[in-house]
This record gives sequence, C-alpha cells and structure tokens, in this order.
Amino acid sequence: MHLGHLVGALEQWARLCSAGDAFFEIADLHALTTRFESPGSIRDDIREMVLDWLAADVDPRRSVIYLQSRIPEISELQVLLGMITPVSWLQRVPTYKEQLAQMGGDIATYGFFGYPLLQLADIVVMRGAVVPVGKDQLSHLELGREIVRRFNHLYGPTLREPQAVLSAFPDVPGTDGRKMSKSYGNAIDIADDEGTTTKKVRSYVTDPQKQRRNDPGRPEICPIFALQKLANQARTPWIEENCRSGALGCVDCKGEAAEKLNEFMRPVREKRASLDPGCVEKIIADGSERARVVAIATLAAVKSAMKLTFGKAP
Amino acid sequence: MHLGHLVGALEQWARLCSAGDAFFEIADLHALTTRFESPGSIRDDIREMVLDWLAADVDPRRSVIYLQSRIPEISELQVLLGMITPVSWLQRVPTYKEQLAQMGGDIATYGFFGYPLLQLADIVVMRGAVVPVGKDQLSHLELGREIVRRFNHLYGPTLREPQAVLSAFPDVPGTDGRKMSKSYGNAIDIADDEGTTTKKVRSYVTDPQKQRRNDPGRPEICPIFALQKLANQARTPWIEENCRSGALGCVDCKGEAAEKLNEFMRPVREKRASLDPGCVEKIIADGSERARVVAIATLAAVKSAMKLTFGKAP
Repeated sequence: MHLGHLVGALEQWARLCSAGDAFFEIADLHALTTRFESPGSIRDDIREMVLDWLAADVDPRRSVIYLQSRIPEISELQVLLGMITPVSWLQRVPTYKEQLAQMGGDIATYGFFGYPLLQLADIVVMRGAVVPVGKDQLSHLELGREIVRRFNHLYGPTLREPQAVLSAFPDVPGTDGRKMSKSYGNAIDIADDEGTTTKKVRSYVTDPQKQRRNDPGRPEICPIFALQKLANQARTPWIEENCRSGALGCVDCKGEAAEKLNEFMRPVREKRASLDPGCVEKIIADGSERARVVAIATLAAVKSAMKLTFGKAP
Repeated sequence: MHLGHLVGALEQWARLCSAGDAFFEIADLHALTTRFESPGSIRDDIREMVLDWLAADVDPRRSVIYLQSRIPEISELQVLLGMITPVSWLQRVPTYKEQLAQMGGDIATYGFFGYPLLQLADIVVMRGAVVPVGKDQLSHLELGREIVRRFNHLYGPTLREPQAVLSAFPDVPGTDGRKMSKSYGNAIDIADDEGTTTKKVRSYVTDPQKQRRNDPGRPEICPIFALQKLANQARTPWIEENCRSGALGCVDCKGEAAEKLNEFMRPVREKRASLDPGCVEKIIADGSERARVVAIATLAAVKSAMKLTFGKAP
C-alpha cells in the first residue's frame, strides 16, 4: 500500500479498530476480476499488504482480518443475491464502463461485471453496518442498499442495509502527477525505504512554467506542494510565498518535501520493519475462522428466508 | 415430471445408473433464476420430483442424488469460473435471448444471465465426463467446454472437459399442441391418476379439418397420433390408414390413446404409489454428503491451480 492509502483509508481503519467490531477483508477474489491471468502475484501480495495494515495500526486483536477466498459463504451469497439483481442495475454502475474503457475489453468478464455484487456479499455476510469507502465506490454501496431492500421485500427482513462512510481520501498526487495509484505505477509505497522515497519525490514534474530557480511558481498546480501540505503543514505558508516569488527553487523544495515525507512515514515504516512477517498466516487463519462464524449464521438466515430448507427442521 | 420427461430423460437416466457412476442434481439454485419470487414452490416440488425419478427407476443405490444448494463448492466454483468467462460468451448463448423474449424482462437478472455458468460449475465440480442434455442445452455445454479449455490453458490441466450426450427427446405434444412442458401448463404428469390422464387426452385439439367422423384426417399434424406412436406402436399403421380414410373418428382415437398411455405409464405410477414419500429426505441427505466429497476435492484442486493458497502447504 502507498502514501495515499496511509493518509486515507488506513488511518480511518485504525480508528475503526477502537470501536472493537471491525472486519477487514483481504479481497483476493475481487483481485481476480482484473488479475485473473496472474493469480500468483495476488497471493504474493497478501503478506506485504497485511504487514502494511499492521504497520498502520490496524489491530488484529481488536478487529477481524480475514481472507475472502476462505469464506465460501461469500460466494454462496453472491450467487443467491444474483438471482434478484437485474442486469440493468449492474450495467448502470458508473465504475463499470469507466474501468472497462480504461483497462480494455479483456476484463469484461462475468466476474468483473458482478464486482459490486460480490462486494455486497462481502458486506452483508458479515452484517456490516458501516462501510468506509472511497468516492468511486459510493455507487456500489448505493446499488447494494437497493439489492438489500429488494431482498428484504421479497423474503422478509433478513439482511442489514449497510451505510457508507466516506473515507477522507485527500487527493495525493503520484510521481506522474495523476492520482497516486498502485495500478498507475506512480506510488510512494509504505514498504519503500527512505532513499527510494527521496528519489521518487525528486522525479515529480513541478510547475512547467517554473524553469529556473528565480521563475515564479504556482503552488496550486504543483504536486510537490500537495505533498508539503500533507507532511509539512507548519511550513506551507512560507513555502507558498517563496515559491510564488521565485525565491524557493524546486530542487530545494523537493529535498525538504522528501525529508518531511520520510519523517511522516518513519513510525509506520519502523513498526513494519519490527514485525515478524511470519505472523501474517496466523492472523489470517484466526481472523478467517472468526469471520466464518458470522458468515455461516448469515447464510443460514438467508437460506431459510429463501426457503432453501428442504428436509431441514422448520 | 411429465410424459415428455419419462420417454426422454428419465429412461436414459435409469440406463445411466447401471454404469454405476451417475450423479443426479436437484437444481434448486437454477430454479431460482426464474422462480425467485416464489421459492417456497421450489422447495415443495423437490419431494414430488424425486419420487418421479425413483418411480422411473433412477436408483439411489447406484447413483448419487443430491441437492444443489447443499453443495457450497458449486457456488464457489461459479464465482471462480466467472472471473475468466467473457460477458460476450454468455450473451451469445441462444437460449438467453429466447427465454428473455418468452418470459419477459423480469428474469433478466445476473443469476439468470449466468445460468449456463452455474450449470458448468455443477458439471465440472463432480468431474462429469458425460452429460445427458436436451437439444436446447447443447449450446450451454459447448460454452462450458470452451470455458474449461480456457481455465486449463490459464492455470494448467485441472478440469475435465464434459461431453454432451443428446437425450433422445421425442417431441411429445402437450394438451395445447405445443411441446409438452411444465411451464406451459400443458403436461400429462407422472403423478396424474388415470382419470385425469384420460380427461387431458380428450382435451387435445386434433386436425381442425377433420370436423366430423367421416372427414379424412392428417395424422402427421395430429398430436393424438404422436401419442399413439409413443404408447401404441403396434396399432399405428391401422390408425393412420383409418384416420386418413375418415373411418376412425377422433373420439374413438382419443379413447384408445388414453387407454394405451395409461397402460404405458401404469408400472411407473404403481411404483410411485408404493414409495414412502418420507424416503426422499434420507436419499438427498446421503447423496448430498457423497456429492460433497467429490466437490470438496475438485475445489481444492481449482483453488490450488488459481493460487488461492496463501498460508497453505504447497
């Protein structure tokens, strides 16, 4: 995971742990929707991702960290929810056509088309009340709530309608100026060392009109200034002024940004380095077992509501 | 089930039992694709359907009779196969648009769209080699074989490519002249008594040009003649001749057809009446347990091939 995750989702997740009833899913089935041709890379990412979570204070003793593919009830529930979900509802999800356009037709699979439905199965199988989501996932949750209402209308009140909580996802720019994203290859990772971080910061393109030290710059369009606001708040008024006047050159500004970013990420990185990578298996095994208890109970209620109960005691 | 099933699928199924390795699925999940609004009726049909199977000599001691919704691995496998199945492959299945046109847009759900994929999961999870299908299902199996090849190409040889065996489905006409089908409400059921059968036979519309006894008839377009060919083969040359000449009236012809049909169905109906309906629960419980053993093994192989193996021994 990267800086954008750290200042967005992960800080929020760590706070959610305090409430003591949080579920964090490692969505390896969802990963298959776009990476089905290289499933080995998904498996290999799991350990690193969970280490990032733990480093950012997601606490496995106060939450349930589990692996999606170990919970068969999620697949069962997706299949059942699919029976009442009109194709047209899925087609109108804005992310569907956007991602298709971006990633090409190869991912136009049945699984990718059902992505929001699998996500809904994830949420309702754990009886999720509150779901932290990014802006682009709001439409998935809205669709999900509609499907839950349809289910409860058809079969009686069974599923909990989840509420979205918008993650405060500050727009963190990546090294190419676009939004920081693993899939763009433009991210500053939690797992990077400080030297790598510094190199990445130096590679950003600043205001193209500021060619030389004394040219005036425009902080509002400069990605380095966005990083300064994130990790170097106390100094941003001074930086803004001296960038505009031209007194501050980009090389110096980048140097300071890199230093402050490394300072900001240091506690997380130090915690990450102190973790035994071998702990991840046990955390996932324990969490998946606890998650299954909830999932099994939900599926029993769903199957009972849908009368999939032949030969069972009423 | 009805006369059309009896002379088509069921006789073939009884023969398949002799080979000793047959699996018969009660597809309650598939039933939800079109009947999701009345799931109770699906549950209530299960016992009657299995009694029909047993009456037609499907032998639970020489086969595995199991309930689809009791095998979670089928849902898991559908979700996984969905990841590699292009939406366009499903769209081009001819039955999809045909059934939509016939049954109306209400069933255009994600589940209904994925019908052939769930069917494929059914087949490959049990490592099915040979699948008896009707003509309209051949395209599903062809699609399924394509998906299996894609899977084995992406992840290594894992799934068995099933072969279709066409069920000899003689075109049995229903009471309204259309193909006999439960969903048309025009069927002569195995569970009907002989009086009901006779009444239903009398309700068929024969050749509309043969208004009176002595009018010449056209056996080739008469549904009663189709029934005679089924249950009264020895007499069909005589019937054909006397229908054409006008000597045989429709009332007499229907009377003979009803009698012969009842004779034909009597052994099955007698066996059905002799069965204890309470045996169905145990047959399904035993069969589902045996089916799960196979399903669990297949899923383990599939997950291993797709690298869904984090934390597992290699």
